[in-house]
Amino acid sequence: MGETEKEKNAEIEELAQKVPEFISQRKYSELKKILIEMNPADIGDLMEELPRENLPLVYRILPKEIASEVFVYIDSDTQELLITSFSDSELKEVIDDLYVDDTVDIIEEMPANVVKRILKHADQDMRNEINKILKYPKDSAGSVMTTEYVDLKENLTVEDAFLRIRRTAVDKETIYTCYVKDDNRKLIGLVTVKDLLMADYQEKISDIMETNVISVNTTDDKESVANMFTKYDFLAIPVVDNEGRLVGIVTFDDAMDVLQEETTEDIEKMAAISPTDKPYMKMSAFELWKKRIPWLLLLMISATFTGMIISSFEEALASFVVLTSFIPMLMDTGGNTGSQASVTVIRSISLGDIEFKNMPRVVWKEIRVAVLCGITLAAANFVKLLTIDRLILGNGDITVQVALVVCLTLILTVLCAKVIGCTLPMFAKKLGFDPAVMASPFITTIVDAVSLVVYFRIATMFLHIGG
Amino acid sequence: MGETEKEKNAEIEELAQKVPEFISQRKYSELKKILIEMNPADIGDLMEELPRENLPLVYRILPKEIASEVFVYIDSDTQELLITSFSDSELKEVIDDLYVDDTVDIIEEMPANVVKRILKHADQDMRNEINKILKYPKDSAGSVMTTEYVDLKENLTVEDAFLRIRRTAVDKETIYTCYVKDDNRKLIGLVTVKDLLMADYQEKISDIMETNVISVNTTDDKESVANMFTKYDFLAIPVVDNEGRLVGIVTFDDAMDVLQEETTEDIEKMAAISPTDKPYMKMSAFELWKKRIPWLLLLMISATFTGMIISSFEEALASFVVLTSFIPMLMDTGGNTGSQASVTVIRSISLGDIEFKNMPRVVWKEIRVAVLCGITLAAANFVKLLTIDRLILGNGDITVQVALVVCLTLILTVLCAKVIGCTLPMFAKKLGFDPAVMASPFITTIVDAVSLVVYFRIATMFLHIGG
Repeated sequence: MGETEKEKNAEIEELAQKVPEFISQRKYSELKKILIEMNPADIGDLMEELPRENLPLVYRILPKEIASEVFVYIDSDTQELLITSFSDSELKEVIDDLYVDDTVDIIEEMPANVVKRILKHADQDMRNEINKILKYPKDSAGSVMTTEYVDLKENLTVEDAFLRIRRTAVDKETIYTCYVKDDNRKLIGLVTVKDLLMADYQEKISDIMETNVISVNTTDDKESVANMFTKYDFLAIPVVDNEGRLVGIVTFDDAMDVLQEETTEDIEKMAAISPTDKPYMKMSAFELWKKRIPWLLLLMISATFTGMIISSFEEALASFVVLTSFIPMLMDTGGNTGSQASVTVIRSISLGDIEFKNMPRVVWKEIRVAVLCGITLAAANFVKLLTIDRLILGNGDITVQVALVVCLTLILTVLCAKVIGCTLPMFAKKLGFDPAVMASPFITTIVDAVSLVVYFRIATMFLHIGG
Repeated sequence: MGETEKEKNAEIEELAQKVPEFISQRKYSELKKILIEMNPADIGDLMEELPRENLPLVYRILPKEIASEVFVYIDSDTQELLITSFSDSELKEVIDDLYVDDTVDIIEEMPANVVKRILKHADQDMRNEINKILKYPKDSAGSVMTTEYVDLKENLTVEDAFLRIRRTAVDKETIYTCYVKDDNRKLIGLVTVKDLLMADYQEKISDIMETNVISVNTTDDKESVANMFTKYDFLAIPVVDNEGRLVGIVTFDDAMDVLQEETTEDIEKMAAISPTDKPYMKMSAFELWKKRIPWLLLLMISATFTGMIISSFEEALASFVVLTSFIPMLMDTGGNTGSQASVTVIRSISLGDIEFKNMPRVVWKEIRVAVLCGITLAAANFVKLLTIDRLILGNGDITVQVALVVCLTLILTVLCAKVIGCTLPMFAKKLGFDPAVMASPFITTIVDAVSLVVYFRIATMFLHIGG
């Protein structure tokens, strides 16, 4: 008890080492004793560490009620392996015990023949529910909801409600929020088990239910639904169709998963990687290459323009070679300042703190930050150039004029970088693109070109060289 | 019902426009009618949009039971304004209604004189609880827990348990998981309201409780605690001290907040920004500057080394000026490939998918990805240089030798970048630093230097120029 994540992982690994031994010595009941003391999620972790040939046997050792819970926590490769090893009746048992939304999650990862087999062994009701959820678009609330919730009628008493909950609870993912429907299946209210516990047995549901219910539509984006959980602290949120009929609920644990996945996607996009929902360790080198190379190629080709800018100032550079040595510093600083602005804005957009209409305030704020940063950087650099580089290291090429050119470029580059960095994600969002794409790599490529043009223009003006 | 986030925001803004009118016309009861139909979190959003002089009045219009709920959802500036406007008895009422963990959150953001006033008006019990939580380290489980949970004794019957829940529920943040303590306050089990509802009234808690309880220690890192929620789908997790005594619980909504905050922090660090928990729109330009400038200065100074590398090859560059024009492309591509590897690894570490012991597998995978990416990029670039740049644009300086130098540099740079990008975050983690710092800006600075050294070495070798 009170173990840290790390200790727990170490324990699971240790056990994973011992399991093959247990099995080869046929100590099944001892193994069972250990397993039933564990949390299903931990058994899931354990199974992923085991040799694949041990998996069906270990799974069969588990008591039935634990087995189907564990099934939800293992990765899809292992699920597929187990399903293939199941007899028809075993498969039916597992499917009967699964919640419908978990079954859908499993189905979405399986090859067609496995899906067929699962659907064949699901009972008619389950099959209908599965098909209902499967038909919603990939990133919609409908696709992550479950159809297993407790529904009540408004004319029931609290006592009736408790009876109904007791009778149906075993199949429901959450019983703590119950939804009240009218005869047309329209959602008209909700009541929590806490409300029921605090009420008299004879009170009517209609008297104690909350009628201002916040709900979402089946077609709403699942990320915006997940964000509602962080705002309202709900256990579950009801999902209605266009006619206001209750069709399912999204539970907080699924919302948490959506938030984690969407954040990972955002982070990947910010690093110029096409997003994927496969964990890194499960991806082959070839799959990783496919996710990364399109952006690298695009960005490499874009960098050609930067090269062209340098080429067009080649003569100036040849006569003032010292200027070349500041190119990396100017480009990097521009890229870094621009990324700071863009990443801050991207994250604020996805947390709902910034919208397009805030653009003027954001730009004005970034301009002030840019002036502060630009002056600080330029001052630090000016002092460094004339003391360390010129006096101490004795680099005579660095004159006061050269230092001024570099520092003035710094200020202007930082200003451009911050403005570009904060506006592009907002424009992207407005135009319906994902703002996360407008992060470091893109901003850097654009700011590179800008900083070089600024640099060479200023150099041409101040150092009296031909451009 | 079924409104999207956007529609809801638009509605709240519209209402915010009208509120000052309601107030100037003294239509308080009409305003009240609208407000009591709203969710407390939405009222909180509304209040942030209102002119500050309207706030105390609008808050007083709210019925008491809604008012303290709303208080939790407004930002700390508004909270401070309201507290200042409260009479002593009003303040006492609000504090009495708040959960202790919310009170602690509020106290942490308030200036000392406000904290003093809050503590003065909290009753003795509340003050003790607050002080207990405040003494835990900033990022620990203890600092985000609440001490208000339902506790049971194992010799109670289910009926007794329901009575106890009914009697105490109103003050508890969650009642759905009840914790069983022995006479020494040691946590010995838990029982959910679902279990209680499914059990007979005369059954003993000791017979139905789950005894394999997963708990965390008060000093555990709050991020690792929050990660346990995504793994186990708990509603709450118990927090115990070093003696195994139950001292509080962390609820899923607080865990969700921790996850969001920690992810924002990670993203900020990845963009070379010192993290903050203040939303962007609330930060002044000066505060933003303070969060950004240290990293910019550090990275700018680091880029000096890159400049020194260029300086030391100045003569070579002067005689082969065309080489300069490829510097940005090589630096950017190196930075981008390195960032892809580092960001992927950083995110995998924080999701718990990768640990230090996986290093050899990760490095081997990245080497293979690097070879694939490097060859693709080099091939594309080679073709582009000799067709578009040489043939079509007529740049005669680009010989086959020059193209080979650039492409060979690309391959080696990508290889170094991927290896540096994937290993640095893991070393950082191992040494107890935050891996998120080892993202794009740092990797880029390091890879820049590496790519230039590689470039000039290869150029010197192949083009027969003096280095």
